[in-house]
Amino acid sequence: MDNISAMPTPRLVDTARLEAALQRFADARDWNRFHAPKNLAMALTGEVGELVEIFQWLTEDESRRVMDDPATAQAVRDEVADVMMYLVRLSSVLGIDLDAAVGAKLAANARKYPAPPPPGP
Amino acid sequence: MDNISAMPTPRLVDTARLEAALQRFADARDWNRFHAPKNLAMALTGEVGELVEIFQWLTEDESRRVMDDPATAQAVRDEVADVMMYLVRLSSVLGIDLDAAVGAKLAANARKYPAPPPPGP
Amino acid sequence: MDNISAMPTPRLVDTARLEAALQRFADARDWNRFHAPKNLAMALTGEVGELVEIFQWLTEDESRRVMDDPATAQAVRDEVADVMMYLVRLSSVLGIDLDAAVGAKLAANARKYPAPPPPGP
Amino acid sequence: MDNISAMPTPRLVDTARLEAALQRFADARDWNRFHAPKNLAMALTGEVGELVEIFQWLTEDESRRVMDDPATAQAVRDEVADVMMYLVRLSSVLGIDLDAAVGAKLAANARKYPAPPPPGP
Repeated sequence: MDNISAMPTPRLVDTARLEAALQRFADARDWNRFHAPKNLAMALTGEVGELVEIFQWLTEDESRRVMDDPATAQAVRDEVADVMMYLVRLSSVLGIDLDAAVGAKLAANARKYPAPPPPGP
Repeated sequence: MDNISAMPTPRLVDTARLEAALQRFADARDWNRFHAPKNLAMALTGEVGELVEIFQWLTEDESRRVMDDPATAQAVRDEVADVMMYLVRLSSVLGIDLDAAVGAKLAANARKYPAPPPPGP
Repeated sequence: MDNISAMPTPRLVDTARLEAALQRFADARDWNRFHAPKNLAMALTGEVGELVEIFQWLTEDESRRVMDDPATAQAVRDEVADVMMYLVRLSSVLGIDLDAAVGAKLAANARKYPAPPPPGP
Repeated sequence: MDNISAMPTPRLVDTARLEAALQRFADARDWNRFHAPKNLAMALTGEVGELVEIFQWLTEDESRRVMDDPATAQAVRDEVADVMMYLVRLSSVLGIDLDAAVGAKLAANARKYPAPPPPGP
């Protein structure tokens, strides 16, 4: 029982260890002065641009099979990771609780786009 | 001892519950057919564009204080959440292990940008 | 003869009048201080994001018919115009000769992607 | 008089020759099938991302001096040209009259952001 009460509430996303790793990374290289939110938002844009370039000439169906080719799969993983790192870093320097922000937006989306009732018997 | 061996390795990022929530969201609305990786990469672009618009006319210093204004802070949290949701959804439909991808890229970055040695005594 | 020598060389793009109009627009509103190249590059991103949002859930075929719907057609025209205005404004504050830059890049692309020979008789 | 009436109305932007050159370029390489508006909008995003990457870590003042360095200046000209080419190609395949679209948006912006009256004597 005590064990249960001590269990952390499960989170939609948990990025605490990446936030800490990125802070150490910036500290060790004296990069904090470059990491203004404005600059990080731009860096996020650049990485998303590189991700989009992988998909731009593919058909939808080809895009669903993009991980079949090992080299392309590695490129996609690398770009997705870059986007994640800049997004988490941006949230971190702004003091945003990503889990709370995502939870609130997911709830808002559920109100904005109500699911249709399941089909009857 | 058994308890320790059963403990999950701490992850840089854990997005499993958000992935599951987004899958349920898409299933309930019959949205999976729209969620080709190509389309999700475009949606990610659109949300990053909305995030960037918040910062475009701000100075770097103003961007560091962007959370001081409650309405702007809410807009930033909403856009950051939108970017996170599309990034996680994209990774999910591609079968990418985000934690592994981020860990590999962080290690590659550490090799690419070695930290200078700490100053001597 | 004199007339011919006085004729301007035809340009791939001629944006001189838009450049002048945008300069007058900025002058009249005291906006030049906001128009650092960094900020204009971000604004360009934001507008491209709005353009992409129109296409993100369309199939390729639907995207080819996007101008059939008057309201969507107007939205596309507006976003394309916004992108053009920020691109021309950015080039203008940087002193870039857009016609020369485009001509040079087009020549470089022709070398990079040589056209196959036409089919024989 | 006749000469004057025969003079073309000056345009804010004239991209007719670039449109024609890009059409010939696509025809010669059998690229029209790739040039769905959806794909061209993505390609535009990718090029804007490359442009933004040049500016992301610069201060506003540094961004104003970006053309002082020959190598960076060339990179900026190349990326600006790439953005222009995809924007004009996108407009072309959609049948958009760029000059008219820009003129309409400029007029709308003038109504949306009225200029303050000039200071009195």
